Amino acid sequence: MAATASQIRPGAYYDSVVLMQLQRGLLTLPGVLDAGAVMATPVNLELLEASGLRPVSGAGADDLLIVVKAENKESAEGALGQIDALMTRRRASGEVDFRPKSLDAAAHRLPEAAWVLVSVPGRFAGGVARDALHLGKNVFLYSDNVSLEDEVELKREAQGRGLLVMGPDCGTAIVGGVGFGFANRTRRGSIGLVAASGTGLQTVASAIHHLGSGISQAIGTGGRDLHGEIGAASARQALDVLRRDPETSVIVLISKPPEPEVAARVAAAARRTGKPVVLNLIGLPGGGRSLGNLHFASGLQEAAEIAVELASSPAIPADAPPPVRGMARYLRALFSGGTLAYEAVLGLQIALHPLHTNVPLHESQRMQDPLHSTGHAILDLGADQFTVGRLHPMIDNDLRLRRLRQEAADPETAVILLDVVLGEGSHPDPAAELAPAVAEALERSDLKVLVCVIGTDLDPQGMEGQIEKFRASGARVFTGLREALDEIARLLPPEAEPWPTPVSLEAFRTPAAINVGLESFYESLVAQGAATLHVDWRPPAGGDERLMAILARMKSPSGS
Amino acid sequence: MAATASQIRPGAYYDSVVLMQLQRGLLTLPGVLDAGAVMATPVNLELLEASGLRPVSGAGADDLLIVVKAENKESAEGALGQIDALMTRRRASGEVDFRPKSLDAAAHRLPEAAWVLVSVPGRFAGGVARDALHLGKNVFLYSDNVSLEDEVELKREAQGRGLLVMGPDCGTAIVGGVGFGFANRTRRGSIGLVAASGTGLQTVASAIHHLGSGISQAIGTGGRDLHGEIGAASARQALDVLRRDPETSVIVLISKPPEPEVAARVAAAARRTGKPVVLNLIGLPGGGRSLGNLHFASGLQEAAEIAVELASSPAIPADAPPPVRGMARYLRALFSGGTLAYEAVLGLQIALHPLHTNVPLHESQRMQDPLHSTGHAILDLGADQFTVGRLHPMIDNDLRLRRLRQEAADPETAVILLDVVLGEGSHPDPAAELAPAVAEALERSDLKVLVCVIGTDLDPQGMEGQIEKFRASGARVFTGLREALDEIARLLPPEAEPWPTPVSLEAFRTPAAINVGLESFYESLVAQGAATLHVDWRPPAGGDERLMAILARMKSPSGS
Repeated sequence: MAATASQIRPGAYYDSVVLMQLQRGLLTLPGVLDAGAVMATPVNLELLEASGLRPVSGAGADDLLIVVKAENKESAEGALGQIDALMTRRRASGEVDFRPKSLDAAAHRLPEAAWVLVSVPGRFAGGVARDALHLGKNVFLYSDNVSLEDEVELKREAQGRGLLVMGPDCGTAIVGGVGFGFANRTRRGSIGLVAASGTGLQTVASAIHHLGSGISQAIGTGGRDLHGEIGAASARQALDVLRRDPETSVIVLISKPPEPEVAARVAAAARRTGKPVVLNLIGLPGGGRSLGNLHFASGLQEAAEIAVELASSPAIPADAPPPVRGMARYLRALFSGGTLAYEAVLGLQIALHPLHTNVPLHESQRMQDPLHSTGHAILDLGADQFTVGRLHPMIDNDLRLRRLRQEAADPETAVILLDVVLGEGSHPDPAAELAPAVAEALERSDLKVLVCVIGTDLDPQGMEGQIEKFRASGARVFTGLREALDEIARLLPPEAEPWPTPVSLEAFRTPAAINVGLESFYESLVAQGAATLHVDWRPPAGGDERLMAILARMKSPSGS
Repeated sequence: MAATASQIRPGAYYDSVVLMQLQRGLLTLPGVLDAGAVMATPVNLELLEASGLRPVSGAGADDLLIVVKAENKESAEGALGQIDALMTRRRASGEVDFRPKSLDAAAHRLPEAAWVLVSVPGRFAGGVARDALHLGKNVFLYSDNVSLEDEVELKREAQGRGLLVMGPDCGTAIVGGVGFGFANRTRRGSIGLVAASGTGLQTVASAIHHLGSGISQAIGTGGRDLHGEIGAASARQALDVLRRDPETSVIVLISKPPEPEVAARVAAAARRTGKPVVLNLIGLPGGGRSLGNLHFASGLQEAAEIAVELASSPAIPADAPPPVRGMARYLRALFSGGTLAYEAVLGLQIALHPLHTNVPLHESQRMQDPLHSTGHAILDLGADQFTVGRLHPMIDNDLRLRRLRQEAADPETAVILLDVVLGEGSHPDPAAELAPAVAEALERSDLKVLVCVIGTDLDPQGMEGQIEKFRASGARVFTGLREALDEIARLLPPEAEPWPTPVSLEAFRTPAAINVGLESFYESLVAQGAATLHVDWRPPAGGDERLMAILARMKSPSGS
């Protein structure tokens, strides 16, 4: 009858590779049916249970738990007796290269290494990354299960030193043609990638290769980089690197679902690169195909397709837009059409931030007082609250005329946008009433008025005549909303947030890297011909948390 | 010195057109600088204030408030003395056609009218719409400020009778070539529109006309139709109309931001039309260009472009997919790549509903227990919770092999999706371990396994060889996620919710319509050559709310 036997090895460090090899080794022993060798976290205990490897109680999250299911009790216990041998066997195999015992020693031996790859378990990873930064190295931090607080602190420290931290939980990068971590082998080329997303980067890089183009640099940031607490710290550094990199002509920016606030910040940086940037921020659609130098993809494959197309187009001299000066800096959009107002919010929310509106897509965008605009404002004047006992603004222009004058009188207004929807049932000649008010507003020289006319050549108002009247008033006239939004993005460039302390481009030329953690990453660097050293890393204090804390306090000059 | 004078006319009905004309009339009087004639809602009082027309206190939301600002007190008060004359002048002008005094009389006089257009003020509109339904008429309900409860009740009643209610707050429709409400004059053609959005419909219809195509029917639903309480009642009826309409070959479905739950329901109906459907649901991206017969647009202009392209393509016999039978009906996607998992959630959330995942885009999608799948499930097995003391599933296949067996053993599993990401650092031969497990799973004849291989021809694993091994195991292999998602949508069609009681297609052939409310809508029907009558409508009980309630109780057979 099948029997199960377990062993707990309390709180110490075990390499994940060692655990995988141990589990596989146990499975080869006589009579063994199944085996698990895992850190005893709640999820891992449940996983064992689900596999019919009922775990014993008493193991904590920092303990190693080994469970063997065998044909009988003897086989199960016999297998447990082999644990030490199996773990040692792995250790002894294939050590040929020189292996420094510490990061310091490795840095001394390979001074040209601008990078340290860190893939030790999460609870040790922050410490190793910090040591690397103190040595002046950029960090590729593969490890996951690193706390958000550690990430904030590491990235703050890196930025202060002009260094880059990719990660934590950064699975992949291609630096100067060399893949770090998980990386597809791809042609070199002129497309640069920034990704808060590992497989996103791999998928786009692979697709670009399939389409015949290539990669200049592919920079991971870690999946949490676009969270509010991190504020796209690494993504902004990476955009700055690709902006300065002469080999990069097109940039692709990918992320898992970002916080809208941070997405706006990173989009502002993307607009200021002066290069075409393809965005695929999952769950945050652009509301169109493009806006200025930003191009919106609906998925990873499409991001690659757009980038390849842009890279093969003759280079457009896309100068970064100059920052706005003076008081007049805001959009005031006065819509009669609700859906057009929504489309404007969708299309501009990433470019004009913060945006206030009575048709919000997120509650944070809701206008406090729809009767008085502040900042960038998009108003649907056909909303229910405005039409009690009043005709719709497509029939009665009074409300819009008054609001147009109100916005024009505000010195902070830079651009006024109006829609004019023609057709049956609408006002018979809207331009006759609106165009004179536009002309009056345009007496202010620092104001622009954009009018978007929606209609057909068959409409009773006469579309051409309407357009002519608005043109004559000095307005810029568009017959589609997208073109109007594009012009608004051009007229209202992002405020000039300073670029971070530059990360040296030298680090991206001929990368040399020190590896701390998974041996397979080292082997892959060797296979790719990169100068590299693998550190024979052991956790401080043998992985004992209490001792580690004491050691950390001793190392820190401030004693904190 | 400028002076202001006001008059309050308590609780009665005033036509919005009369108020506009009154205001304009006052402005032409000697010495008058500005004037307002509005129902005294809080917003309107604030608007008067903002225009420098300080309102007197004491007026309520149902009262008419007239404020005049003039050069002096005499002019202001003189203007107020003209109010009755100005309101009567308007009344007396241009009455030539026969005007029945009631909807009943109009219906008797124009029995072929299948439609009633309602544009009386919101608080009266529900009653008129209900009367129309009782007469067996479809309703175009332009009025806004109708309560959600009234909308729910009207639509329920309409559905029971096989009638359609477009609205409330439905600005526009094109029925059998005739525009209702606000409508652009467009070529007739084979593209049918369904829109929970007025200017959205107008913009897309205009753009389709510009692009050289035309409209079969354009059906509005009112902006709230895709709210949870309404559940897309009118949109589903409209899709059913266009599905049955032989003149419609392509459908466009537009809405303001929908509730995800309802969007899924309407998308299920769209999939079952068996015709290509272009979707532009603001703020709900499709995560790709298309999925089965659904095509996703990033904006109104693009929706028109895609529809025109589809309409000019040779008709694809897009049969509605057959419903799934048997227990095996769910997707189980086991990803090693987090971003791929997100892209799958984004791409499938509208088609597979409800969807459970550990990488949710909305909190409602979050899996309660990531270790046990129920319903449609998409799992990122590289998430932090799974990788404590365990190698990433791109290196160590153990976790995925176990989960693959677990899902295959669940009789509710119909489709298993795996991603396999090649490249440096990943497992040297993932197919060697995964393909045999796939073959074993496929011993169940009602199961399909899809494998999405991401990589390049240069990757160390050898992409072709990996694909071959998976093909030999019986899996369907894809090299891009979009194609795999498309196949999943094909394999898992929506559950067959019955179509609503059909609305007669006859009503959409040569529309005749009775108009109750804005005269301009009647004039536009006349101009378009439609058979029509305008009802000389007055509110019941002169607009007195208390009396109206008594009358309503007397009319209702149930007394409720």
